[in-house]
Amino acid sequence: MSEIAFIEKFLRNNQDYTLAKYAARQELTITSKSDANDLLTEVDLTLQKRAVEEIQQAYPGDAIVAEEGEFSKYPENPGDRCWIMDPIDGTNNFVRGLFPIFGISIAFAKQGSAVAGGVLLPATGDLFLAERGKGATHNGKRARVSAIQAVAKGRLDIDFSTTRDRREMVQRAAGIMYKMGQIRCHGSAVASICQIASGDIDAYLHMSLSPWDYAASQLIVEEAGGMATRLDGAPLPLFDGGKGVLISNGAIHEELLGLLM
Amino acid sequence: MSEIAFIEKFLRNNQDYTLAKYAARQELTITSKSDANDLLTEVDLTLQKRAVEEIQQAYPGDAIVAEEGEFSKYPENPGDRCWIMDPIDGTNNFVRGLFPIFGISIAFAKQGSAVAGGVLLPATGDLFLAERGKGATHNGKRARVSAIQAVAKGRLDIDFSTTRDRREMVQRAAGIMYKMGQIRCHGSAVASICQIASGDIDAYLHMSLSPWDYAASQLIVEEAGGMATRLDGAPLPLFDGGKGVLISNGAIHEELLGLLM
Repeated sequence: MSEIAFIEKFLRNNQDYTLAKYAARQELTITSKSDANDLLTEVDLTLQKRAVEEIQQAYPGDAIVAEEGEFSKYPENPGDRCWIMDPIDGTNNFVRGLFPIFGISIAFAKQGSAVAGGVLLPATGDLFLAERGKGATHNGKRARVSAIQAVAKGRLDIDFSTTRDRREMVQRAAGIMYKMGQIRCHGSAVASICQIASGDIDAYLHMSLSPWDYAASQLIVEEAGGMATRLDGAPLPLFDGGKGVLISNGAIHEELLGLLM
Repeated sequence: MSEIAFIEKFLRNNQDYTLAKYAARQELTITSKSDANDLLTEVDLTLQKRAVEEIQQAYPGDAIVAEEGEFSKYPENPGDRCWIMDPIDGTNNFVRGLFPIFGISIAFAKQGSAVAGGVLLPATGDLFLAERGKGATHNGKRARVSAIQAVAKGRLDIDFSTTRDRREMVQRAAGIMYKMGQIRCHGSAVASICQIASGDIDAYLHMSLSPWDYAASQLIVEEAGGMATRLDGAPLPLFDGGKGVLISNGAIHEELLGLLM
């Protein structure tokens, strides 16, 4: 099976399970990780376990990087064949909140570059898929970034994440926040970034992302005609989101970089 | 018919129309108001026209204040009987974006105090209703604010609104933004505020609100056990959101006021 077919199948196969757990979320087992607001549920663990087992069976020997437990300790170099997964991105929204904004994300990378990626937003049913060089789809239709040409007319999805990055975010992003037409903060990197691919927002900004937060969605946006860089404007490698990530429709990327402090 | 029954009936009667227009939103007639990002659609106008006609028929002589057109010029004093309406709050989300976060809000006030209010989020079906002194409901069940006791453990919904208020927001709210456990920005005041009544978030902050943005949802939160004040901590009158609004579960209200700059 091709990697993109594997990704699509895994996402579709796990939608019902995830939604059933979401509907009964009052009964979930929830623990905190390093930060009291960084939550972990049995759903994160189960989805990751399923993906790891299926990848190991279908593609023995491939490296696997994922958000939870031992799989989160990733090497500097992704190696020849590597899978990068976030079982539930937006766990806090999964556990609490009126709006079900969370996603499952899986990417496959060859020699350090994502070549296939998929994101499913189980609650809305939105499915994004992309293969390097072949374009991106949103619910089976070609995905394309917006045609917005100016920051003042654009929508920004900004992620305040945990308190660790807040001061840096408020200080460095103030210029962008003053100018952007609209600002949203949905609390799920993969959901927010995929919105750029669907043309629903124009930019996404985060001070510090882990590989599983953007590996698939970066590819999806790039294949939809958008752009992703570090905050210094340099290319954004697969394992290098720690210094911040700016993803956009491309047309307003330079203007946004110029407004960053 | 009691005012709360009128409100509930109006909201339920207009859910299907609103959703049908949302589903076909590519075909909407959209114009800008004073600000290029302050949008107006035919749905705002139609819902307001229907409400005005039905109020005038059921309660002749009552004052009506609403977001669009001539009805937005409200007097300093609401008078004896006054209706306050926002046909679509979150018009920008209605027009663009992957997540259907928008609401219809109607309140009825006697002698300057809201005594009945309702908010419907048409896309999720969430219906909030409240009568002064009789509690609030969320989808027919008693609504109660969260039990969160500390800002560091809480979720804040912050509204960056149009560019006009952004500098003030970033400067005055920085202390809150550094400390709050989680931050979201959903772009609809009535949806965001009602989340406090359902216990899904703990606080909402805005630098400048119009009466229709909070008349109903303030009552809903207060009847669910929460609190609403101006940013100086003084009570929040029906027609006085221009200097900012802080709404919370009550327990973290003082701590939030103390963090405001």
